[in-house]
Amino acid sequence: MTTRDKAFEKACKDHGLDPAAPLVVGGNYLPLAQDGKTVYLAGQIPKVGDKVIVTGKLGNPLTVPQGQIGARICVLRGLIALHQHLGSLDKIKSVLKLNVYIQCTPDFTLHSEVADGASDLLVSILGPAGAAPRLSVGCAQLPKNAAIELDFITSTV
Amino acid sequence: MTTRDKAFEKACKDHGLDPAAPLVVGGNYLPLAQDGKTVYLAGQIPKVGDKVIVTGKLGNPLTVPQGQIGARICVLRGLIALHQHLGSLDKIKSVLKLNVYIQCTPDFTLHSEVADGASDLLVSILGPAGAAPRLSVGCAQLPKNAAIELDFITSTV
Amino acid sequence: MTTRDKAFEKACKDHGLDPAAPLVVGGNYLPLAQDGKTVYLAGQIPKVGDKVIVTGKLGNPLTVPQGQIGARICVLRGLIALHQHLGSLDKIKSVLKLNVYIQCTPDFTLHSEVADGASDLLVSILGPAGAAPRLSVGCAQLPKNAAIELDFITSTV
Repeated sequence: MTTRDKAFEKACKDHGLDPAAPLVVGGNYLPLAQDGKTVYLAGQIPKVGDKVIVTGKLGNPLTVPQGQIGARICVLRGLIALHQHLGSLDKIKSVLKLNVYIQCTPDFTLHSEVADGASDLLVSILGPAGAAPRLSVGCAQLPKNAAIELDFITSTV
Repeated sequence: MTTRDKAFEKACKDHGLDPAAPLVVGGNYLPLAQDGKTVYLAGQIPKVGDKVIVTGKLGNPLTVPQGQIGARICVLRGLIALHQHLGSLDKIKSVLKLNVYIQCTPDFTLHSEVADGASDLLVSILGPAGAAPRLSVGCAQLPKNAAIELDFITSTV
Repeated sequence: MTTRDKAFEKACKDHGLDPAAPLVVGGNYLPLAQDGKTVYLAGQIPKVGDKVIVTGKLGNPLTVPQGQIGARICVLRGLIALHQHLGSLDKIKSVLKLNVYIQCTPDFTLHSEVADGASDLLVSILGPAGAAPRLSVGCAQLPKNAAIELDFITSTV
């Protein structure tokens, strides 16, 4: 197993996620779509099994470290989809864009700090290929009361 | 007329939209941009003629079925732009990403159900090519008090 | 110096921005990423030096013209990154998509008018290549209490 895939499987295990679990989608949509070498991922929420485990608003009651845990689970769910699609994370050339949506109170301003949870995990698994231009914004509310939702675009080899 | 174009024209008629109406933009922007085989669409709001017909917040006073009507009108407006640009919806190879922004109350959580209105119509018109990875988020407020705004990226043949 | 680069440098000067200032990122992310001819930019907030200078909510206390100033600074920050990466803005073939996120009160509806500040500046610097399909949405809150955040995708020659 490659260095990336090992780090990925360890992180999945640490967060209670099964990298081999079949991807489930609840409607007429897809986990990802590939166009040439570019892969678009669906928005990921911090779900473990069938339960969203980081819910509510950043700022109150959630703290930044709680938001970062949610961010890491979202990243791992995205990587699980990519791993199943590509066979190995070594096929990822680079992350082209990371978009982070954070459910927060009206006075919350630490979006970047929460999003760092996602960026840091991407880099720890993919190396420099995991660093990407990033957008983070605050949302009034997210699906299923998720505290965070994110997606990313990758280029593949 | 092809199967897709027929289904598209029928859906437009059902929703009071004229597929041949010239696209109007109110500033220094475009309805869409093509880069190679990839087409980026502007954000679509549920406008029929010159009136936004689904306004206000999902959760209160709007219900999920009302939001889904808005989602369908947005999709059709996007397809109208693509149809005028490409000549036929048969030129769409696949939808690469669908982003759905929903104006909602702070306790609304049924974003995915509203977004299904968009995904289901895309699939009913385009077939499997209309299924795409999807993002749905809740917004404090949308332009012109629209209940929903969405955009999608397509690859073309 | 080309017409575009001259207009860009003048606009930077007018807004107190230094086009040669090294780009600073505060974590494991990048100012931009290029994939083939496509360049993805990080989300830009209205920062001059190390200070976000347009903060708070559109609607109250901020007015549309204040939001437009913020939009222009965001655009210029994006163009600074592109200019440093490409060497000249003449290498921009077109802007493919502009996404504008506006921090606003729950009853604010003039998102498009604020976003026009961004579109108009892009066109005034890049000419017709600066017109792009656009998304504008309202956000509960943005990083560092920024009034506006935006990103754009460009194709390059």
